[in-house]
Amino acid sequence: MVRLCWALRRARGWGALAGLRARPDKFGGVTVDLAELRRPLRLEWTAFGRWLQGAVLDESTGRVLVVQDRNRTLNAWKFPGGLSNPGEDIGDTAVREVFEETGIKSEFKSILSIRQQHKQPGAFGKSDMYIICRLEPSSFNISFCQQECLRCEWMDLDELARTKHATPITSSVAKLLLYGYREGFGKIDITMREFPAVYTGLFYKLYHRELPESYRNIT
Amino acid sequence: MVRLCWALRRARGWGALAGLRARPDKFGGVTVDLAELRRPLRLEWTAFGRWLQGAVLDESTGRVLVVQDRNRTLNAWKFPGGLSNPGEDIGDTAVREVFEETGIKSEFKSILSIRQQHKQPGAFGKSDMYIICRLEPSSFNISFCQQECLRCEWMDLDELARTKHATPITSSVAKLLLYGYREGFGKIDITMREFPAVYTGLFYKLYHRELPESYRNIT
Repeated sequence: MVRLCWALRRARGWGALAGLRARPDKFGGVTVDLAELRRPLRLEWTAFGRWLQGAVLDESTGRVLVVQDRNRTLNAWKFPGGLSNPGEDIGDTAVREVFEETGIKSEFKSILSIRQQHKQPGAFGKSDMYIICRLEPSSFNISFCQQECLRCEWMDLDELARTKHATPITSSVAKLLLYGYREGFGKIDITMREFPAVYTGLFYKLYHRELPESYRNIT
Repeated sequence: MVRLCWALRRARGWGALAGLRARPDKFGGVTVDLAELRRPLRLEWTAFGRWLQGAVLDESTGRVLVVQDRNRTLNAWKFPGGLSNPGEDIGDTAVREVFEETGIKSEFKSILSIRQQHKQPGAFGKSDMYIICRLEPSSFNISFCQQECLRCEWMDLDELARTKHATPITSSVAKLLLYGYREGFGKIDITMREFPAVYTGLFYKLYHRELPESYRNIT
C-alpha cells in the first residue's frame, strides 16, 4: 500500500470549500465549481461523502491514538479520520484514513457511534453524518502527516476521557470506549455481519448489536 | 399533520429511476434529468437521501407492524419505511414514513441496525445506506396506503422471526428485536443523545450504546 500524505489532504474538509460559490441542487445536495480550486482531483471524489473516524485502542497498554489538527485555532485532541470514497466500506475508510494520517496500521472491530448534524454552516447549511469506529492496532510506530497534523500521540484512554482539551464528540466517545475497555467491549460494540445481496455476486453489510446464536438460528 | 399518500410515492424508490438517463457526477454521486419524469417534485427532494425503516413493536401484544409492497413480484413481509428528506433526523424520517404508509403514529426509541450496500444495480451502481429504527406505537388502527402497499398487518414478532416470507434484512432484524423483547431492549438499542454544536443555537445528535451515569460524569 502506498501511503498518501499530501498537502492537498488539508483541503479535504468542508472548511476548505468555504471560499467556493455553492448553490443548492435538485437532490438536496449542493453544487460547487471545483475549477476554482487549484488541485481539485481528490476533492472531487470525496467532497460530499461521509466522515469516518477511527478510535485505535492498544489494549495491552490502555492507550488510544489521538491527533491535533494543524488547521484549527483550538488545538483539541481528536481521533484521526476523514471522508469516505465512493463505494468504500465504513470500516475500510476508517482504517485507510488512520493509516494515511498517522502511519498506524489497524483492523476494524466495530462501530461505536454515529453523529447526525443539520444546517451546518461549514457544509453550506446541509446535513452531515459522522461515524466513529473501534479499531485494533497492528503497528505502533507513529509517523504522522505533517501537513495535516500538529501532534499525534498514544494517549492514556483514562486521560482522554477526563481532559478538557478534546472535542466534545471525542470526549463522549472516549468515555464510551473506557466503559467498554473496563467492562467488556460487548457493552459498546455495534458489530458487522455480511450477507449475500439479491443481486448475484454482491454482498451487503449489516451493523447491529451482537445477536446470540440461539436467536440467529431460530426457525 | 396532513397524511400524504400519493401514487407518486410509488415512484420514490431507486427502481422508479431506472428508466432515466444517469451519469456519474464529480462528487461520487449521479445526475439524472428529472424532467423526464412527469411529476418529479417530491422525487427531487428525496431521490438521493437515506433509506429509513421503522420496526413498530406493540409491547402489550408482542406484535410488530409489517407491510408487503404492491410493486414487487415477491410478496415478502418487511417493515414500513422510505427515504429521508434533506435536513430530517433519522428518527423523524422513520416516524413520518411509517405514518404515511400505514396510518400508525409512533415514537422513536432507538436505532437497531444499519445496512451498507455497494454497486447496487438499482442505484446506478452506487452505494446506499439503510437504517432500521425501533419505534413505539401510540395508535393501533391500520389505514394503509393502497397505492404503495398490498397488505399491512400487526404480525406476531415470533412469527415474523421464523417465517420464510420476509426479506432477509427483515428476518435478521426481527430476530434481533425478538431478542430485545424477551431479554431487555438494553441488549439491542443504539440510543440517542443531543448536544449543543459549536455553532450557536444548533444541536447535533449522537447515537451509541447507553453509557452509565458514572462514566458520563467522569472528570
